[in-house]
Amino acid sequence: MGKRIVIALGGNALGSNLPEQMAAVKETARAIADLIEDGHQVILTHGNGPQVGMIQKAMAELTRSDPEKYIPCPLSVCVAMSQGYIGYDLQNALREELLLRGIRKGVATVLTQVEVDPQDPAFAHPTKPIGAFMSKEEAEKLVAERNYQVMEDAGRGWRRVVASPKPQSIVEIESVRDMVEAGLVVVACGGGGIPVYTTEGHHLKGAAAVIDKDFASCVLARQLEADTLIILTAVEKVAVHFGKPEQKWLDVLTPEEAEAYMAEGHFAPGSMLPKVQAAVEFARSAPGRSSLITLLEKARDGVAGRTGTLIRQ
Amino acid sequence: MGKRIVIALGGNALGSNLPEQMAAVKETARAIADLIEDGHQVILTHGNGPQVGMIQKAMAELTRSDPEKYIPCPLSVCVAMSQGYIGYDLQNALREELLLRGIRKGVATVLTQVEVDPQDPAFAHPTKPIGAFMSKEEAEKLVAERNYQVMEDAGRGWRRVVASPKPQSIVEIESVRDMVEAGLVVVACGGGGIPVYTTEGHHLKGAAAVIDKDFASCVLARQLEADTLIILTAVEKVAVHFGKPEQKWLDVLTPEEAEAYMAEGHFAPGSMLPKVQAAVEFARSAPGRSSLITLLEKARDGVAGRTGTLIRQ
Repeated sequence: MGKRIVIALGGNALGSNLPEQMAAVKETARAIADLIEDGHQVILTHGNGPQVGMIQKAMAELTRSDPEKYIPCPLSVCVAMSQGYIGYDLQNALREELLLRGIRKGVATVLTQVEVDPQDPAFAHPTKPIGAFMSKEEAEKLVAERNYQVMEDAGRGWRRVVASPKPQSIVEIESVRDMVEAGLVVVACGGGGIPVYTTEGHHLKGAAAVIDKDFASCVLARQLEADTLIILTAVEKVAVHFGKPEQKWLDVLTPEEAEAYMAEGHFAPGSMLPKVQAAVEFARSAPGRSSLITLLEKARDGVAGRTGTLIRQ
Repeated sequence: MGKRIVIALGGNALGSNLPEQMAAVKETARAIADLIEDGHQVILTHGNGPQVGMIQKAMAELTRSDPEKYIPCPLSVCVAMSQGYIGYDLQNALREELLLRGIRKGVATVLTQVEVDPQDPAFAHPTKPIGAFMSKEEAEKLVAERNYQVMEDAGRGWRRVVASPKPQSIVEIESVRDMVEAGLVVVACGGGGIPVYTTEGHHLKGAAAVIDKDFASCVLARQLEADTLIILTAVEKVAVHFGKPEQKWLDVLTPEEAEAYMAEGHFAPGSMLPKVQAAVEFARSAPGRSSLITLLEKARDGVAGRTGTLIRQ
């Protein structure tokens, strides 16, 4: 009996530029097709760090080339573009791999917005650096002219920083659900989703923020009532005492055990920590739900219970 | 009894830059919401001329800023980005307008690829100018280095030209159909779709081409077995002897009558002609199907039979 699985692809599933992405998605497609072949319902999400960085830089160069004609492009619009850019390659590679295996299954990318809370404390303390490095003068100009927030990155120069608020809900959830129920493989929540918040009259306004794709994937998995959330990363299992002589790989954890390890500071903030947090949140959201953290190429074995770190009640 | 209607939005429904687009889509949303309120199933398509031009220019500026790091971005990828960019604003404006009217209906944008025939004669004779004007030297460099085709635009400089092949089929048709049948309002085939063709092993390769959005909308409407194709444009009705003293607005035409007028040269190539061609092709594709050409703000009246030019068997 197939499971409904939300899979959050990591950066290495996509590469960091155009040629890398085209090569990486082929590998990714094979691992995903394995799960579909095993009878699972798959919903894909992905990050967009290098891609949205590239698009943002391109739009900034455009404004620089002709400031009269091209106003600065909001970050939310850059995220929307990155969903088109990545979804195109990803859905194509998966479609091709499925057809090569004789599986006739539609694959589609849905432009996805994710609602955030404008009162989220993250907006008061932006921490996520985006875009190119700048001189102090350039940074100060952006602060004065566009109200950007900036931060010095030890020795490498200045960068714009934006908030990374917690995702609240997926705006296009009904679309995604209908598509999944119609048997389609859906690519959604690219780059954590386009961050928006509601203003007067149902109006959704784009936020100058980026949403962590693992947290967004957790919200998506909850709203889709998925069985499993898979967070793919660069290691086969989560470890405690990572990189030390007493390092120990973890196989199965309860949410409580995972939280105890988090409290002991075993997982790196901005790296493994948010993944474990998202995994715990999903595993705890309803009985029978589990989260798996593993390598892309181990996803099939992980779902079969042979590897990865499983978090379940 | 509601109809299934594919609506091809014209350039004025979107504006030509970021602030214009945000304003224009509000107007567009009202006209579309009228049709949804009347009980029709609506599928939206749109052009992307100014938008893909902007993205292409941005990506070219990026390559210029750091040619080592950023290879030139294929046109098909720029189209994919433009679908994200436009779909984001368009779906949001429509969602907001529907909610203001108390209509709870999902609106979603599907990244859409459209298959073209690599043997299409259009590839041998590219005619569609895209991107910025260049000097003769810049144009010659692109011909030599990237195998681009270029053309001089009377007195204004040189531009890249690409093919505009006829669309054959919509790759994501099943996704669009499933979504429409689930009751969603779908935005699809943005910019005429990302042009692709099949190579060995089901692989879809992006083509350096642009697809006419009215022809793509016709193919989409046929594949969805729509009742009506609405092509929105800058005039309320199609005219013969347009702009002359004997000008005559057309109310209802058979495909044969429309073809006779086309043969007499009444419609401007690259402007009204492809719209009438697409309208004729759809009206002729099955009994009971009709095409309507009118203004955005007259769409509701047009569907009710009160204005516009109707083409039907």
